[in-house]
Amino acid sequence: MVVPRLIEHKRDGLALEPGQWRALIQGYVAGEVPDYQMAAMAMAVCFRGLTSEELSELVDAMLTTGDRLDFSGWTTPRVDKHSIGGVGDKTSLLLAPMLACCGLAVPMISGRGLGHTGGTLDKLEAIPGFRTRLSLAEAKAQLERLGVVMLGQTPELVPADRKLYALRDVTGTVESIPLISASIMSKKLAEDLTGLVLDIKLGGGSFITDPVESRRLAETMIAIGEARGVRTTALLTAMDRPLGWASGNALETAEAIRGLMGEGPPDLMEVTFALGVEMLLVAGAETDRAAARTRLDHVLTSGQGLVRFEELVVAQGGDPAVVRDPSRLPQAPIQREVRAPEAGMVVQVEPRAIGHAIIALGGGRTKAEDVVDPAVGVVIPVKPGQRVARGQLLATIHARDEAGATAADAVVRKAIRMGERASPLPLVSHRITRDGVEALQP
Amino acid sequence: MVVPRLIEHKRDGLALEPGQWRALIQGYVAGEVPDYQMAAMAMAVCFRGLTSEELSELVDAMLTTGDRLDFSGWTTPRVDKHSIGGVGDKTSLLLAPMLACCGLAVPMISGRGLGHTGGTLDKLEAIPGFRTRLSLAEAKAQLERLGVVMLGQTPELVPADRKLYALRDVTGTVESIPLISASIMSKKLAEDLTGLVLDIKLGGGSFITDPVESRRLAETMIAIGEARGVRTTALLTAMDRPLGWASGNALETAEAIRGLMGEGPPDLMEVTFALGVEMLLVAGAETDRAAARTRLDHVLTSGQGLVRFEELVVAQGGDPAVVRDPSRLPQAPIQREVRAPEAGMVVQVEPRAIGHAIIALGGGRTKAEDVVDPAVGVVIPVKPGQRVARGQLLATIHARDEAGATAADAVVRKAIRMGERASPLPLVSHRITRDGVEALQP
Repeated sequence: MVVPRLIEHKRDGLALEPGQWRALIQGYVAGEVPDYQMAAMAMAVCFRGLTSEELSELVDAMLTTGDRLDFSGWTTPRVDKHSIGGVGDKTSLLLAPMLACCGLAVPMISGRGLGHTGGTLDKLEAIPGFRTRLSLAEAKAQLERLGVVMLGQTPELVPADRKLYALRDVTGTVESIPLISASIMSKKLAEDLTGLVLDIKLGGGSFITDPVESRRLAETMIAIGEARGVRTTALLTAMDRPLGWASGNALETAEAIRGLMGEGPPDLMEVTFALGVEMLLVAGAETDRAAARTRLDHVLTSGQGLVRFEELVVAQGGDPAVVRDPSRLPQAPIQREVRAPEAGMVVQVEPRAIGHAIIALGGGRTKAEDVVDPAVGVVIPVKPGQRVARGQLLATIHARDEAGATAADAVVRKAIRMGERASPLPLVSHRITRDGVEALQP
Repeated sequence: MVVPRLIEHKRDGLALEPGQWRALIQGYVAGEVPDYQMAAMAMAVCFRGLTSEELSELVDAMLTTGDRLDFSGWTTPRVDKHSIGGVGDKTSLLLAPMLACCGLAVPMISGRGLGHTGGTLDKLEAIPGFRTRLSLAEAKAQLERLGVVMLGQTPELVPADRKLYALRDVTGTVESIPLISASIMSKKLAEDLTGLVLDIKLGGGSFITDPVESRRLAETMIAIGEARGVRTTALLTAMDRPLGWASGNALETAEAIRGLMGEGPPDLMEVTFALGVEMLLVAGAETDRAAARTRLDHVLTSGQGLVRFEELVVAQGGDPAVVRDPSRLPQAPIQREVRAPEAGMVVQVEPRAIGHAIIALGGGRTKAEDVVDPAVGVVIPVKPGQRVARGQLLATIHARDEAGATAADAVVRKAIRMGERASPLPLVSHRITRDGVEALQP
């Protein structure tokens, strides 16, 4: 393997031959292929893409660089969902215990927030004591016992992706549909799943803002999953405004707990149910969507979901008191209200701006090493299309200090736009499966 | 400066802002910008190019990373020529002493052969004792004394280019018109020239095989030179066959010396004169091409050119005896003849294949660290379009051993194609100046 020739090949728009991606990834993980060659290759892939054969080989090559969960011999179906990231998206915290209550195993390996988007691990860690660093062996043992485990990527899981993702992050090569797909799917395939549901966000708060690209990403990941025997479905969901009311780690965890109590914001619950239904279907636990929905409803109304979440918190070292009383989660010392300067209609709540307000408050990351303040955030109880009276509460900013509150205040005021006509995206607009794309009725 | 943002900017087809290329190059040379970021950036430039403003800043940034020759206060015009590389091209060895005889100073900084192309330094070093590693101070002193110096790139000269070129070489990012232009022109501008002539090769032996790209390269380099007060002209010359008869280091040096004696191959002399005429014009030493040509003719017929070359060899530690008797240059122990299997017309002598034959003989490099055997090579006394009799000599292979001769024999036989119709490129087809492109009559 002469690496510069492979890079030139890709640069010139040609596909690598069978075995070459495997050799490249193995060489990279072994330290034989240096970062600078992989960076040039990643940039060439940004421009030239990968054929489906190349992508398939890349995913397999990445997978085989590390350990995986192994459920051979298990009869319990394993299911997970993956979101490409948004603002206020706390569906994982609801779905993991809910699906476990339906008799499925949910081995959920999640990430941290970066840039304007939040991350499941940060939300869980807002719970005092909650441990997200588990070994694969611990994770498997907990899954057998409890049906659900929520953890971070372990060092032994797809090391090629850890190394390649860190490189892409500093070389302007993140935005590539095949590289994003390979990164996500190699980790999800390492969970040895029966079924996987992808939540592909549309709108200004998604890190992919072009809907055609979003669909290509969904289709690419579905092809990867299905080719390896994992039933994979994607929903296209709205991220032209934050999901739910709360954005910020502890605030979102509290909202998720209230959702498990049956008191969640309507939009959050709608997306949660839509994803949950698909998870039951891909796992083979239901074949009928109405029946699946009824089953998930029952999980909440019976209180089982909340109980399972509490058990999850206990199992992973967290303080279970917060599950009964979410107000025990970390609280920011300052709460500043933003009120409507005059009557009118909310036409937009710009999620990217809200994400940046949270970073300004200390609750987000601009680089992976940043430490987040779990308590800070923004709660916005209004939605695009909603009429408000003069002086009505538009947002509450939870800040560590006055300076942070003032900075966030300016951003939040700009992010909540008033006007004449709102045209928010439908919450769940399309379902994509191996059979094609289906537009959903609102 | 946030380097990943700059890379993304270029990746997305946008121009960097004033100061950003300068900061990037300075950071790179200082070791603050790592190789992997520069590799990704170089690949993005391969796809997106550079605006003329960006290129200008890149060249200046590279120039200021190192020392330069400084001729402020000199009245003698300085002139150089640069070829983008070919097979059998030994014009520099003729032109440097010839132009010095015309009262110009020729501070010629050259490179080594790589891949199928030869390099001036390797040809000079075929002369026993010849030193090409001179400091800039030594070079300047010799130039004052003798009007000509021929040396290799010194460590203090454009270190940014040394570092960037080494990186591009291993990351598939060599083939970029703006990066090639910046690399060449930053080194030539460091010579503090009055005028520069570029020899842009066309045809299969050029490393740029697309004539449109060749012209773009010429125009880009001319714009860089002219913008900095260096009169710059390019000739497009034929590299669809080797230039002259001999390819291989000592064989080419011998041929160049015979050329200075007035016994060079006609095609070599024609290209040499054409380049020399342009060098006199860009230096301001002549305004009329016919007069310039007469002056160069006189330099050869009077024997001055040969004498100046001998003085150059002496000044740089070489054995002057080889100048009087080129047969004293290193000789390969084996000479194998290739003869025409039947009568016919030579339609092609494929220069890239001849270059590869020389590598196979040990006289070329596949990587920069390779040591070359000066004595080996191939002499091809026939040209495309020439009729040959059965048994007529087509080539003489100069080899270190029988195995090498046999390997080269097979390549050379294939490289010299016989047939019905030959359509070689005109030797010197176009002149490009800041005023535009001029097609030349053959």
